[in-house]
Amino acid sequence: MPTTNWTRHHILTLADFTPAEYNIVLQTAASFQEVLSRRTKKVPTLQGQVVANLFFEPSTRTRSSFELAAKRLSADTLNFASATSSMTKGETILDTAKTYLAMGTDIMVIRHREAGVPNAIAEEMDRLGAKVSVLNAGDGQHEHPSQALLDLFTICTLLDPDYPHLELLKGKKIAIVGDILHSRVARSNIWSFTASGAELHLAAPPTLLPKLFADYGKNRPGKLFLHWELEPALRDADFVMTLRLQKERMTAHLLPSLREYHQLFGIARSKLQLCKPNVKVLHPGPVNRGVEISSDLMDDPEFSLIQNQVTSGVAVRMALLYLLGSGKT
Amino acid sequence: MPTTNWTRHHILTLADFTPAEYNIVLQTAASFQEVLSRRTKKVPTLQGQVVANLFFEPSTRTRSSFELAAKRLSADTLNFASATSSMTKGETILDTAKTYLAMGTDIMVIRHREAGVPNAIAEEMDRLGAKVSVLNAGDGQHEHPSQALLDLFTICTLLDPDYPHLELLKGKKIAIVGDILHSRVARSNIWSFTASGAELHLAAPPTLLPKLFADYGKNRPGKLFLHWELEPALRDADFVMTLRLQKERMTAHLLPSLREYHQLFGIARSKLQLCKPNVKVLHPGPVNRGVEISSDLMDDPEFSLIQNQVTSGVAVRMALLYLLGSGKT
Amino acid sequence: MPTTNWTRHHILTLADFTPAEYNIVLQTAASFQEVLSRRTKKVPTLQGQVVANLFFEPSTRTRSSFELAAKRLSADTLNFASATSSMTKGETILDTAKTYLAMGTDIMVIRHREAGVPNAIAEEMDRLGAKVSVLNAGDGQHEHPSQALLDLFTICTLLDPDYPHLELLKGKKIAIVGDILHSRVARSNIWSFTASGAELHLAAPPTLLPKLFADYGKNRPGKLFLHWELEPALRDADFVMTLRLQKERMTAHLLPSLREYHQLFGIARSKLQLCKPNVKVLHPGPVNRGVEISSDLMDDPEFSLIQNQVTSGVAVRMALLYLLGSGKT
Repeated sequence: MPTTNWTRHHILTLADFTPAEYNIVLQTAASFQEVLSRRTKKVPTLQGQVVANLFFEPSTRTRSSFELAAKRLSADTLNFASATSSMTKGETILDTAKTYLAMGTDIMVIRHREAGVPNAIAEEMDRLGAKVSVLNAGDGQHEHPSQALLDLFTICTLLDPDYPHLELLKGKKIAIVGDILHSRVARSNIWSFTASGAELHLAAPPTLLPKLFADYGKNRPGKLFLHWELEPALRDADFVMTLRLQKERMTAHLLPSLREYHQLFGIARSKLQLCKPNVKVLHPGPVNRGVEISSDLMDDPEFSLIQNQVTSGVAVRMALLYLLGSGKT
Repeated sequence: MPTTNWTRHHILTLADFTPAEYNIVLQTAASFQEVLSRRTKKVPTLQGQVVANLFFEPSTRTRSSFELAAKRLSADTLNFASATSSMTKGETILDTAKTYLAMGTDIMVIRHREAGVPNAIAEEMDRLGAKVSVLNAGDGQHEHPSQALLDLFTICTLLDPDYPHLELLKGKKIAIVGDILHSRVARSNIWSFTASGAELHLAAPPTLLPKLFADYGKNRPGKLFLHWELEPALRDADFVMTLRLQKERMTAHLLPSLREYHQLFGIARSKLQLCKPNVKVLHPGPVNRGVEISSDLMDDPEFSLIQNQVTSGVAVRMALLYLLGSGKT
Repeated sequence: MPTTNWTRHHILTLADFTPAEYNIVLQTAASFQEVLSRRTKKVPTLQGQVVANLFFEPSTRTRSSFELAAKRLSADTLNFASATSSMTKGETILDTAKTYLAMGTDIMVIRHREAGVPNAIAEEMDRLGAKVSVLNAGDGQHEHPSQALLDLFTICTLLDPDYPHLELLKGKKIAIVGDILHSRVARSNIWSFTASGAELHLAAPPTLLPKLFADYGKNRPGKLFLHWELEPALRDADFVMTLRLQKERMTAHLLPSLREYHQLFGIARSKLQLCKPNVKVLHPGPVNRGVEISSDLMDDPEFSLIQNQVTSGVAVRMALLYLLGSGKT
């Protein structure tokens, strides 16, 4: 692993991540990506440490990705799912976190359907003087930092597999398309992409992209553009990220129909002709095939980075757990 | 472990298993059975490999058996249960499998309530050029290969603990009794037992054993017989396997009552007098005591191999994971 | 680890625990507490052994505590939760236990909402001549031995961190306050605290503390007192343990209101003035803040031992698994 100057104790948001921090994560993840290509994919880095996955909201891919990352670092893992827990007995979330702290947890990976829960837990842990680190694995519509970091890693390793770093994005055009308003992934992505010299273009129907999103671009190295139609976002884009559309948005009258949404904002091969010739498509998953992206495009390895994203996820989460955990033992 | 000529990449069905393959499984499982009797029951064989248990249908014994087998081979395990997963978000099963592939899964153990799902996943993995192996842990009413292999191993090790092999079944009479129509276990057992020189007798009410089951016996080394009453199947039998009766069969009017079913097809000590003196009884579990088998018989170690089957299950599943996994690293 | 004269094969109740046994548990737990303060918190003691957590009733803290204890002893763990299991298919509890036995389980940790289930399983295992140990992790309103042992350890290590032993409680006054009638924790605590020379005072409304609880104190080294009001129990107390109040008790008309309960039997800082100056408060968790204990008191490290109890839990459960498991391999 590279010698690092990592000082951040919790990973809750990317709003204040520095370029140096992004680059440490990218390069640490690259080292682990190399470990994962070896015959023996485990390293003893976090042996004896406990990573508790506290998922107050169900999740397949993110929980498994963190669990596997922890196991490949030789940590012990504890899984908590709220459905089978004392939450039904009325215990508060902070009390649950303090219980896992008292058991000896070193890193808490937390997902909750309400924004701010990981922050609240981290503040309480700090107040108690605890050494435990908190990693936000998705809180409401707020942030999902590890997802945005794996997206960044996926793009940067494509541009330079040997030396992925933030500066590779300089001059690139990235489009994020879809239900930005309700997406914690998009918010974290906006922070990471505008931290570089990239041009970031958001595109969605007006109901899913309020004007105030323009504020995210203030005082950021990268430029942020908002569009209420798809074409200007796609024109000459190097990377297009499309977001999952929750079907509940329609019953809330934010959208007319899935079919119309797909026609106007769904990503299909024909629309990619507006982009750079070697454009790549990303999606944080799980995908509604035929809604936000056409099924054939999702499966086309010439365009789709979706599987790369999942693979990157394990390496990036290993990096995050390593950076948070290596100072503890 | 024995040096093997194992070439099969997925284990989806026993329909085309060769005698050589059965014998490799039996002898590899015997080696692991020996490991399990040692002080230290773990071997480092699959260290660093990932076994993902993708159970789209709930299961206690099969999932735990595979999980323990994987852990005793030092593999890392990921458990997926559909109730707490993205399946509720509308992701397709193939997409779930591809996600676990992209995370670095080496072996997928798959259970699904619909026949053909493991095959479909295996085909997709092959199409993608992925090295991952798929192991069918029960698909609908189709097959449950590892269960049939552990049944075979249980019987063969009883006949020769030091050298269990298929030829030991030559001239033996085996009866399978119960709801054959709806049983994936029975279908896999029919393939394994007719692969040997055994005589296999199926017995069930006509509603649970259609005539077309006779087709399974065509062009097989062993002979297959169908009976709509119990006695001819039991007469001089060496082994009697009784199957779980789903109570739903009655509401579907396939059966008059549990009491009558037990009288006609339930296995009790009195009925075993028709069999060979040292007849043994098997059941894949979980058992409806007093329905397909009498409670006292189930617990009688003189007759019942039911606990041996569970113990064999871990050794056989270690063998299967070993055979699929040992070529990967 | 200390050389021990441990002979008990199952831990089902504390009713017949001897002072020597309490002291072995306390001192073994103290050794593991020391291990947990090291850089590497794992020991290879139970490598290759299988600890099955059979939780027929949901639980967060107890299951995680046992799971972590097992992992820190390098055991393999299997988790069973009845909601996703064959129990829905009608298998009996004994059959489930026998299945886990046959898979090779060395220690079964069992929780069930009905009293006596762990005993029944242990008897059946013994009848079968199995070497497996059974550890009661809470059965109905009967007992929860590991919880009472961790409470004892928490108090004794406070009194003498280097040499926690039962005799430290001589002359101490301990109060248990709350829904004693329905509490398995209280019953186990009564056994452990009356095994020492402590004075144990129970306090609760008459509906939650029947007179017959006085019988628990017969022929015990410690003295047992019952009170239907709070004050006499708190007066000069060294330790106050308050119990969770199930809200269902009110709908059953055992209590008038939560507010009145809190006024009469809730523990708040003001009421502690009756106690010894350095009194400490315990609670088995999860806590109903503001009902059985005031929220600020629970969080006050000057008085509250609640987090210590959770931390002690891992060390005590490591000790119990070690004592049951170390003779097996």
